[in-house]
Amino acid sequence: MLAEIITIGDEILIGQIVDTNSAWMAQLLNSEGIRVKQISSVSDNREHILKAFAEAAERVDIILITGGLGPTKDDITKQTLAQYFGVPLVLNEDALTNVLNIFKRYNRPMLDVNRMQAQVPQNCEVILNHNGTAPGMWFNEDGKIYVSMPGVPFEMQYMMQDQVVPKLKQTLKLPSIVHKTILTAGEGESYLAEKISDIESSLPPHIKLAYLPKMGQVRLRLSGDGEDEAALKKEIDVFAAQIVERVGVNVIAQEDKPIEKVILDEMASRGLTLSLAESCTGGYVSHLLTQHAGSSAVYLGGLVSYANDLKQHILGVKEETLYQFGAVSEQTVIEMVEGALRQFKSDYAVAITGIAGPGGGSEEKPVGTVWIAVANANKTVTKKFTFGNKRLQNIERSAVSAFFMLNTLIKETTT
Amino acid sequence: MLAEIITIGDEILIGQIVDTNSAWMAQLLNSEGIRVKQISSVSDNREHILKAFAEAAERVDIILITGGLGPTKDDITKQTLAQYFGVPLVLNEDALTNVLNIFKRYNRPMLDVNRMQAQVPQNCEVILNHNGTAPGMWFNEDGKIYVSMPGVPFEMQYMMQDQVVPKLKQTLKLPSIVHKTILTAGEGESYLAEKISDIESSLPPHIKLAYLPKMGQVRLRLSGDGEDEAALKKEIDVFAAQIVERVGVNVIAQEDKPIEKVILDEMASRGLTLSLAESCTGGYVSHLLTQHAGSSAVYLGGLVSYANDLKQHILGVKEETLYQFGAVSEQTVIEMVEGALRQFKSDYAVAITGIAGPGGGSEEKPVGTVWIAVANANKTVTKKFTFGNKRLQNIERSAVSAFFMLNTLIKETTT
Repeated sequence: MLAEIITIGDEILIGQIVDTNSAWMAQLLNSEGIRVKQISSVSDNREHILKAFAEAAERVDIILITGGLGPTKDDITKQTLAQYFGVPLVLNEDALTNVLNIFKRYNRPMLDVNRMQAQVPQNCEVILNHNGTAPGMWFNEDGKIYVSMPGVPFEMQYMMQDQVVPKLKQTLKLPSIVHKTILTAGEGESYLAEKISDIESSLPPHIKLAYLPKMGQVRLRLSGDGEDEAALKKEIDVFAAQIVERVGVNVIAQEDKPIEKVILDEMASRGLTLSLAESCTGGYVSHLLTQHAGSSAVYLGGLVSYANDLKQHILGVKEETLYQFGAVSEQTVIEMVEGALRQFKSDYAVAITGIAGPGGGSEEKPVGTVWIAVANANKTVTKKFTFGNKRLQNIERSAVSAFFMLNTLIKETTT
Repeated sequence: MLAEIITIGDEILIGQIVDTNSAWMAQLLNSEGIRVKQISSVSDNREHILKAFAEAAERVDIILITGGLGPTKDDITKQTLAQYFGVPLVLNEDALTNVLNIFKRYNRPMLDVNRMQAQVPQNCEVILNHNGTAPGMWFNEDGKIYVSMPGVPFEMQYMMQDQVVPKLKQTLKLPSIVHKTILTAGEGESYLAEKISDIESSLPPHIKLAYLPKMGQVRLRLSGDGEDEAALKKEIDVFAAQIVERVGVNVIAQEDKPIEKVILDEMASRGLTLSLAESCTGGYVSHLLTQHAGSSAVYLGGLVSYANDLKQHILGVKEETLYQFGAVSEQTVIEMVEGALRQFKSDYAVAITGIAGPGGGSEEKPVGTVWIAVANANKTVTKKFTFGNKRLQNIERSAVSAFFMLNTLIKETTT
């Protein structure tokens, strides 16, 4: 079963907001076996919207529309739907009651434009909006389903979950779609592709493999569709197991989860703590960890030591080391990581020192030179990287590389 | 001049990634006077991509395509472009040299699939990719411009900024568009709109004012178009000066520059240094500062003290203070900021402690409670905030609020 998402409104087209609704909807639809064939963002323009509806109806069975349902003049989705279906707008009593209740609840005076929000095209079934004044609308015309919802994320989300998806499942006979994602790090897309090319070639036509690369990480995603979900899951698991075995140490997780979350969960389950000593990554590694709820169970904290003085003063890096080998050196990164273990009293520590650029490079140590160390009480592992000359990329690549090294050390220590 | 953005790849359609590229591109295009009429996300399917190209060519003059240029089998943009234009793929020497150089730089073995990345449709002009192996491609056919770029955000961004936009400006006759942005913080959109409503009403029809809100900051952007760029600039400057005077202390900068960069530049010019003591923001404030080249001239470093032990041990927060008032309290944030000044020997310091959520809240201190302190040798300023219950938003709002407070203290200290 195929769907198209149409978002209506200029704010996406001028780049004022990022369209997060579509990704949210697509995830939900996919999990129910509805494949999104296209996402189209169109402007608040009648002709353009009519064309988008007609084009979508040629491609798909289900057309989900968000946006353009507000009370102001630039919101024209409802009028355009009425024109598209050749029907008038009529007042819907249930929708009116909903609007009245909302205004009563907030004790606000109701204007004519608010009352007009209860008007809907004659041929629609109203989907009540429990979180706002604009009703959703369900149309079933010429074998196609059209659903129009508000663009406000939480209004749309409740409507989709509580009403639209259940109604779609009830109305249509949906096939099963199964995804399985394998997160890898430390090797590039083409290396992986070569390594598993025979497995990829052996996939049956109803199972596809996608490579999703992102800064030192590649997600391998197997997707299949079929009638029997359990059998499909089993079938995909067999191929996933082959890939996991082949890719070996570069496999971080067999689910779609950020690498730092994989590490946090593993460390939390084993009661381990972590601290950081960051120089060139400047707090980015710390931020990646702490964006996750519950990170405080594992992560004690860390130092961002941009100035050498802090490396000495807080971490206990020796002045001679800095003088003799420089701040970006194996010797310094070892003293940083061991200083972090000692000062912050954690089970594991990560230290990163490098030249993020664009300034600060030399012939011997060009921009992009980064030393990373990971350590626990028994072992310290260091590695030198030579990234490129883009500051933000160097920061991101350093972070992913550090997580890959940490993950390897943690895994090693169980076995 | 109208453009359409076409993103190719299943990862957007299954909702695995949010399409941030399109908003970024739309902003850049708009600032050059190119209006985005539609954004279409389509799957890695040849027929579907061909149809999307044809539909876009009916609507617009410029078609910007991202994604589907990787070395693996699921990436078919290049082959599909060749089919669309009815031309073969040919090896491009410049693109091959670029691929070879990248593999040489990283000292990795080159595979056949990598060599194939240098193949492009015969009718294209290659846009070199300085950040990756997939070349960009420029087509000028039947009066329409098609540009194909990688979907990896930083590769696309550098290509757009350095090559595609300059080439579009050179090829097309674009009208002059002048923008002037005023960055504000500390007050919301509707407050600002009310405060400057008479100035807004007095704008001539060729000058528009846009409110661009983002997490505690609002950018006010004046945009005008006309023939005489110099005269237009002068005209806009007059209105900008009126707005700046009216908005007062909430004006951070009269240019489109992140708030932390405004602070870094001001501090650098005055030879001032900064350190941080972050708790609930977990390194995010540090990351915002250090993403900017040259930040090391101002920023010495900071501590992320998730564990109370680190607050005591490194910053010297008293155990009694933590015990009596708790980690999220005015007393603690004062000791944190003064500890940072003392330990890290900086001219200014910022401390943040709060409950980012979703856990850790209480009736007295609900999730979203954040204390922020900024200080120099002579003055410590504290403020309590009550944000919402979304972890990432609380982190972001705390960071912006801290920068606003720091900016105010620094400004105050000159006069």
